[in-house]
Amino acid sequence: MFLRFFTFSAVSTQSCRYANRSSIDAKEIFLPCFSLSDMTTRDSEDRRASPKNCPHCSDSTLLPTFTYFFRGETPPLPGMPDLQLQNHLWSTYILGHASPWIDCDSKEEWLAALSEVCLEQEISYAAYLGVRSFSIELKNRDSPRLAKIISKWLWTKNTELGFWIFVPTDGIGEPTSKDSRDTWGIWADFRTLCGNFSIDRLQCGIRVTPNLAPEFENCSHSLRWKGEPVAAFWYDTEVFMTEPTTSQACLSIIHSRLLSELWFSSKQKVIVSSKFPVADERRPQYSKILRVVIASKMRVLEMHAQLTSTYVGVSDYVDSLQPPLQPLSHDLSSGIYDTLEQDPVKYVKYQEALELAIEELYERCEDIVIYILGAGRGPLVNTALASAAKFSEPDGTSKIQIVAVEKNPNACQTLYFCNMKKWGQYVNLIGEDMRDLEKFVKSGELFKPDIIVSELLGSFGDNELAPECIDGLTPILQPHTICIPQRYRNFAVPIQSLRLHQGVIATEPRGYHKVQNFRGRGKPTHQSDGTFKVEGFDFATACFDQVYVACMRSYTPLAALKKIFAFEHPNIQGKSNDREVTVSYTMDRDCEVMGFAGFFDVVLYKNVFLSITPTEQTEGLISWFPALIPLRKLQRLRDGDKIDFHISRKSDDEGVWYEWHISTFDAKTNKMVDSEVQNKDGASYYMRLK
Amino acid sequence: MFLRFFTFSAVSTQSCRYANRSSIDAKEIFLPCFSLSDMTTRDSEDRRASPKNCPHCSDSTLLPTFTYFFRGETPPLPGMPDLQLQNHLWSTYILGHASPWIDCDSKEEWLAALSEVCLEQEISYAAYLGVRSFSIELKNRDSPRLAKIISKWLWTKNTELGFWIFVPTDGIGEPTSKDSRDTWGIWADFRTLCGNFSIDRLQCGIRVTPNLAPEFENCSHSLRWKGEPVAAFWYDTEVFMTEPTTSQACLSIIHSRLLSELWFSSKQKVIVSSKFPVADERRPQYSKILRVVIASKMRVLEMHAQLTSTYVGVSDYVDSLQPPLQPLSHDLSSGIYDTLEQDPVKYVKYQEALELAIEELYERCEDIVIYILGAGRGPLVNTALASAAKFSEPDGTSKIQIVAVEKNPNACQTLYFCNMKKWGQYVNLIGEDMRDLEKFVKSGELFKPDIIVSELLGSFGDNELAPECIDGLTPILQPHTICIPQRYRNFAVPIQSLRLHQGVIATEPRGYHKVQNFRGRGKPTHQSDGTFKVEGFDFATACFDQVYVACMRSYTPLAALKKIFAFEHPNIQGKSNDREVTVSYTMDRDCEVMGFAGFFDVVLYKNVFLSITPTEQTEGLISWFPALIPLRKLQRLRDGDKIDFHISRKSDDEGVWYEWHISTFDAKTNKMVDSEVQNKDGASYYMRLK
Repeated sequence: MFLRFFTFSAVSTQSCRYANRSSIDAKEIFLPCFSLSDMTTRDSEDRRASPKNCPHCSDSTLLPTFTYFFRGETPPLPGMPDLQLQNHLWSTYILGHASPWIDCDSKEEWLAALSEVCLEQEISYAAYLGVRSFSIELKNRDSPRLAKIISKWLWTKNTELGFWIFVPTDGIGEPTSKDSRDTWGIWADFRTLCGNFSIDRLQCGIRVTPNLAPEFENCSHSLRWKGEPVAAFWYDTEVFMTEPTTSQACLSIIHSRLLSELWFSSKQKVIVSSKFPVADERRPQYSKILRVVIASKMRVLEMHAQLTSTYVGVSDYVDSLQPPLQPLSHDLSSGIYDTLEQDPVKYVKYQEALELAIEELYERCEDIVIYILGAGRGPLVNTALASAAKFSEPDGTSKIQIVAVEKNPNACQTLYFCNMKKWGQYVNLIGEDMRDLEKFVKSGELFKPDIIVSELLGSFGDNELAPECIDGLTPILQPHTICIPQRYRNFAVPIQSLRLHQGVIATEPRGYHKVQNFRGRGKPTHQSDGTFKVEGFDFATACFDQVYVACMRSYTPLAALKKIFAFEHPNIQGKSNDREVTVSYTMDRDCEVMGFAGFFDVVLYKNVFLSITPTEQTEGLISWFPALIPLRKLQRLRDGDKIDFHISRKSDDEGVWYEWHISTFDAKTNKMVDSEVQNKDGASYYMRLK
Repeated sequence: MFLRFFTFSAVSTQSCRYANRSSIDAKEIFLPCFSLSDMTTRDSEDRRASPKNCPHCSDSTLLPTFTYFFRGETPPLPGMPDLQLQNHLWSTYILGHASPWIDCDSKEEWLAALSEVCLEQEISYAAYLGVRSFSIELKNRDSPRLAKIISKWLWTKNTELGFWIFVPTDGIGEPTSKDSRDTWGIWADFRTLCGNFSIDRLQCGIRVTPNLAPEFENCSHSLRWKGEPVAAFWYDTEVFMTEPTTSQACLSIIHSRLLSELWFSSKQKVIVSSKFPVADERRPQYSKILRVVIASKMRVLEMHAQLTSTYVGVSDYVDSLQPPLQPLSHDLSSGIYDTLEQDPVKYVKYQEALELAIEELYERCEDIVIYILGAGRGPLVNTALASAAKFSEPDGTSKIQIVAVEKNPNACQTLYFCNMKKWGQYVNLIGEDMRDLEKFVKSGELFKPDIIVSELLGSFGDNELAPECIDGLTPILQPHTICIPQRYRNFAVPIQSLRLHQGVIATEPRGYHKVQNFRGRGKPTHQSDGTFKVEGFDFATACFDQVYVACMRSYTPLAALKKIFAFEHPNIQGKSNDREVTVSYTMDRDCEVMGFAGFFDVVLYKNVFLSITPTEQTEGLISWFPALIPLRKLQRLRDGDKIDFHISRKSDDEGVWYEWHISTFDAKTNKMVDSEVQNKDGASYYMRLK
């Protein structure tokens, strides 16, 4: 085992409390380096370790290994005694590295077999030391023997040791006509052989080499690594060049872009190593160059995070999956309303739209009755009041009437409070479902609306059942009634992301929280033992058959966005809100689809527009994270492959649901093959109308 | 809903950052108090809230509830608008409390039915506000309707709202000949009706009254609450007396003992309330009295915690379940050795024993060969060297030889290092399993031992397979060979603890960690998708069929300890280490058995003795937490009931396992009834010999 030196965490330069004790520094770690790299012949004598003393280590503590291990065929163990460091230092500062000669999938059977034995010993020894991560370089295009060893450790050993599998950016072996995989494909196959074990413990590392294979020069191709768990970047000092005028070290644009592009978390690490002794003045130069690249990327990430984390109120929301709100079947809480009201842009746009609408009707109508539908705690009431104030008559009166409709009895308390304290009882509060207003109009208690305003859209547009809610008012609309929003559309794009795929698996509810997180069509039933159950329901599959909302960062979109559904209001003809659509995407690189990211845009009124699509994103709008529609299985596709996404929006008396599946081309049968239909009949994800 | 005032966390008097903003203080909270308690007649007009203004609240923000709720039969909602506090303050400082008149299980059907509607509204409103806990008092000996409402909230609603169910210490209703349950029994039945939902969300509270029912005066009975999730103590000011000489408030010994006895965590809360206005100078007196009681209990808890947490290296180990070590099948890590070596007492005792043994043999033998069996990183080698030094000859030589035997190749590295650096190559290191030493003796490489020393005991004595390991040396022992330890026994006692029962359920492994945590007889197999699986294994039941180790605090032993198994060494006759025993316990109170706590004691040599039993605990010994042997189901027993614990230790060529079950008396059939045998054939918990 080789203990890596010169490793640093680029962001948190935590000062080491133990520096005096063991002369270890968080930024640059020099430890006795010990390698078994000379051990490449079959001669049994040569298997004895021939340790090279570390240039930085004057007290040679390197040990020949324990006597009795030489008796049989067992090669020697690494000779790094645990007592050299306190236990918590091993786990904090040291990264284990497999001896460079190890090659479990060598064509030389003797070397492969010996490598297997030694690698297991080295891993076991790293686990003994308490080291958290053990790194290995991928040397072959196929590594089934290495994968089996790692897979066995990960799946069956109860240790905290994780693995970093390094791939070189100059490629692994030569592609052939039969095997055209690039480095990403080789890595993806490797982790698949390891059962795609949790990215908490099986990650990859990018070994940055002076020469880059085309896939690391081409941005679209290298961005696929954003969907992979990249733990570390390993720069060999050979990658650095010398700036001729200043004689300072520098990095080519393409080498620094690679780091900037794939850096997405302060948990990632950068390692710099050298095959030769490095001059003392050079070290800080290398370190500085990399820090500058990372710092500028971190500024971008933090700016974005600051914006949204204030809004969300938590910091670790990135890539974390949430169920979309279901405001019809679940009354929202004060805290959620509070969050939704923080958006700095949304209500400005609503006010613009509302004022356009009022202007449009002002001359035509004697009174203008505005219904705020789903008023919540009243943000749109405030907007409407502000708009009304602009249109007040010279004598201070107003021809604008405001009706706030809210079915959540708890939020009604807040509305009532605001009406008393803030709105001077100006607002007519109706504690009812907006679909049940007809009776108030018939009884003369309410006038028909001239404008109806609502904010019922979800991340995937219609997924909070805006179409059904707004259509519920159709019987009481007037011919001139203006509806804000007027129309909205949703979009989808196939994405690659191992992290999000595993995130979906992790949402499978358990124990006491199982039924709480059930969102399917069935109803939980009370059991004789006091518990509630959903009979015959498979929670493990169900987690893939749901729509999520997430601030996604570790993913790569694999094509251009395509439109899915569109809705318009008012819907006087009562057109069905059921939909069915198939959209096709063609892959422009080898990739692995985990599902689809969903977005929407909306025309509030005339030219007032909101969007969360990546290209048209309304500036400053933070109310919506994208939606995620997962697939049950990771789908590997080749450059040029076509994928069809079939999605329907279905409904019955009680609720609405999506069903979806994909079709991909199967080279064997020369046909498109359908995947299983997900969320059939809304079994797992059913958006109730009540 | 009633918002509780004057609540404080007794330990962390966190200063409130928002004090200026809303005049809220962490210690004493005064909020507008609002109660629906007048609402006890059927007259519909009276159902309108008649809020009483809080004496501390000059600005009356109390609201009549929203208009439309009076239309039907729906009673009004609580009138506490959420905007009065920032959202995080609701969750931090406010405890919701059901309106005092609510009684879902009243004999008056109208009141029960109305209570159900109102309670659901109040709970929903508390959830809306973001309050974390909602408290309700148990009023009836049976509360199935209340239980159903709470159960439904807990099991099916995805909110963070938890429930505190208060029981009064002067009893609930009158026991009858048919229903002799005490208050504990009533609570236990209630939570059972709620499916024993997670104690994170369903807890009880003790409402301390001036008069105490016998079960709260009797220590053995009141201690059962240690096994229950007691969230809070609620002292009515009537409980306090006035010290005649100083006119200061004071508390009777029995009332303060109750708090001291059942206080086990800084997360618990104390509430003081009064039906009448309280004089300003009285408030700090009440608070101080309770703080003094709690502080002195916390000192005891912290002293214990400090001792063990330094040792364990983590702070939240209390009541947390760990799998026992299996040093034969899993090589221990450096960190675990490091922890095991910290014990301040164990090695002192071993040295005493070793010196007695050397003394015994010194004149008789020419050389004294000491085998350290399972030397680990060498703590017993140090002990042996220290002992040897005491017996060195006048010329400085020693007739004591030390052989260290260790099968963990990683630990051998450390031994080798120590032998080089610290022990002057004095120790003969053997990297072998201690059961395979015969070949070295036969080849003349080793002399037969005069003393063998090992520390192979687990929390339940033999559960790290000390008998099998030590017996492995029998062929090479001499007639005079002394074995340290000489003999050991284990013990068990039935215990009550809802927390530990739920702790066992929580250990069920999931996802990527499932197979890692498999400890049964079968072997995980490699699947075609790269994962590992244990075919046809039920992890949900298996978690009950295992032995755990835990620093248990929230539990109550229900009887006196009884001896289970005993072992002696050397075992020259090669007696079997299989055992089978049945022990009986008779309950001295109504209770609920969740399983058995296990302990051991050991005679190292002659009078040198170590014990972890509660009564004989060796002072300062921290190496072992007790063992826990759970039952699959909570077993309710009555005062005077008998429980038989059957446990066997079985073995085959590959390993050793325990099987256990209980027998209890069934009043219906008038017979003892056996529970299912747990861990049959070691399916779930199998201690491998290799």
